[in-house]
Amino acid sequence: MTESRRGRPGYDRAGVLEIAVRAFNEHGYDATSMGTLADRLGLSKSAIYHHFPSKESVLDAALEQGIGALEAVLAEPGATTGRAADRLRFVLERAVHVLVDRLPYVTLLLRLRGNTSVERAALERRREFDRAVTALVVEARDAGQLRDDIDPRIAERLLFGMINSIVEWYRPEGPEDADRLAQDVLAVAVDGLRLR
Amino acid sequence: MTESRRGRPGYDRAGVLEIAVRAFNEHGYDATSMGTLADRLGLSKSAIYHHFPSKESVLDAALEQGIGALEAVLAEPGATTGRAADRLRFVLERAVHVLVDRLPYVTLLLRLRGNTSVERAALERRREFDRAVTALVVEARDAGQLRDDIDPRIAERLLFGMINSIVEWYRPEGPEDADRLAQDVLAVAVDGLRLR
Repeated sequence: MTESRRGRPGYDRAGVLEIAVRAFNEHGYDATSMGTLADRLGLSKSAIYHHFPSKESVLDAALEQGIGALEAVLAEPGATTGRAADRLRFVLERAVHVLVDRLPYVTLLLRLRGNTSVERAALERRREFDRAVTALVVEARDAGQLRDDIDPRIAERLLFGMINSIVEWYRPEGPEDADRLAQDVLAVAVDGLRLR
Repeated sequence: MTESRRGRPGYDRAGVLEIAVRAFNEHGYDATSMGTLADRLGLSKSAIYHHFPSKESVLDAALEQGIGALEAVLAEPGATTGRAADRLRFVLERAVHVLVDRLPYVTLLLRLRGNTSVERAALERRREFDRAVTALVVEARDAGQLRDDIDPRIAERLLFGMINSIVEWYRPEGPEDADRLAQDVLAVAVDGLRLR
């Protein structure tokens, strides 16, 4: 069901979601009503309800775009086969791509405060993702592939602190594309800034 | 002027500021009124006005605690003398300490949206701080002390992405103290996670 029953052009479900996510990021989820969304879309509230039964279901779909894509990275062959350190590199690199490709959705995900059950469920999935990456750091360390003088949980948080910061400053129209940015993140994370 | 004129115990100016910052971080600055602050403090609004003429002046004082401390790092001898790479290390290390020591104040600073002139002034000071650190990265790179294959602005943003993330997950009561955390940040930033 991606078209309005009245054949109104312009907004299918994905289009509504895109505008909604921008509004949530600009004004905050709590401060954005279905009426505000309708105004932005130039639609009636009932046209939005045609796609989404509630504001929470809009949020749920938007968060799925972010957390679902990150979870999918963990299921890719690059994350499940090979040396642990190489799988970690793969996950970091792909996570940068997810952030860049789905910038507004991941921004929304990272700014969640956990006020509703939908938000809390997404936060729990984020924590589960972090735990999976931490387990990879542990595995790589135990295999003698990474230094062992940093607590793996701290290492994971610093790595994703660096990666997640991208949503704060990355501009798609800037000179740095996602490939280059992913290389820079890996360069700092794996080798550091020191000249060799 | 650090005491209520009525000799009411408990809240001097710093105490009011501490409670106010917690409220701003929990509920957002816009959503926190002087009345809310008065309720939290168990004071009358006029008792708060005794210390701060307006809600914006509370915000201004709170932001100063964060950005002022970061600016002060740049003026310390460790940041102004010696090899550029060592000065950069010094600034990163001291910035971690500022974040940990002034966690709620820096959290407030990092979550600013720039809705008021006070917020915009603090954001401009943050940008100035970032420019100064970027200049240090450039200097260290040009002196052959840091790798030259990463854009210094990107490097600075990734470094402070990592450092600023600390406000999202650091718990003062946890096992990691500020010294240890600063070492971990430098370990990742300078040498990376690769085993040597």
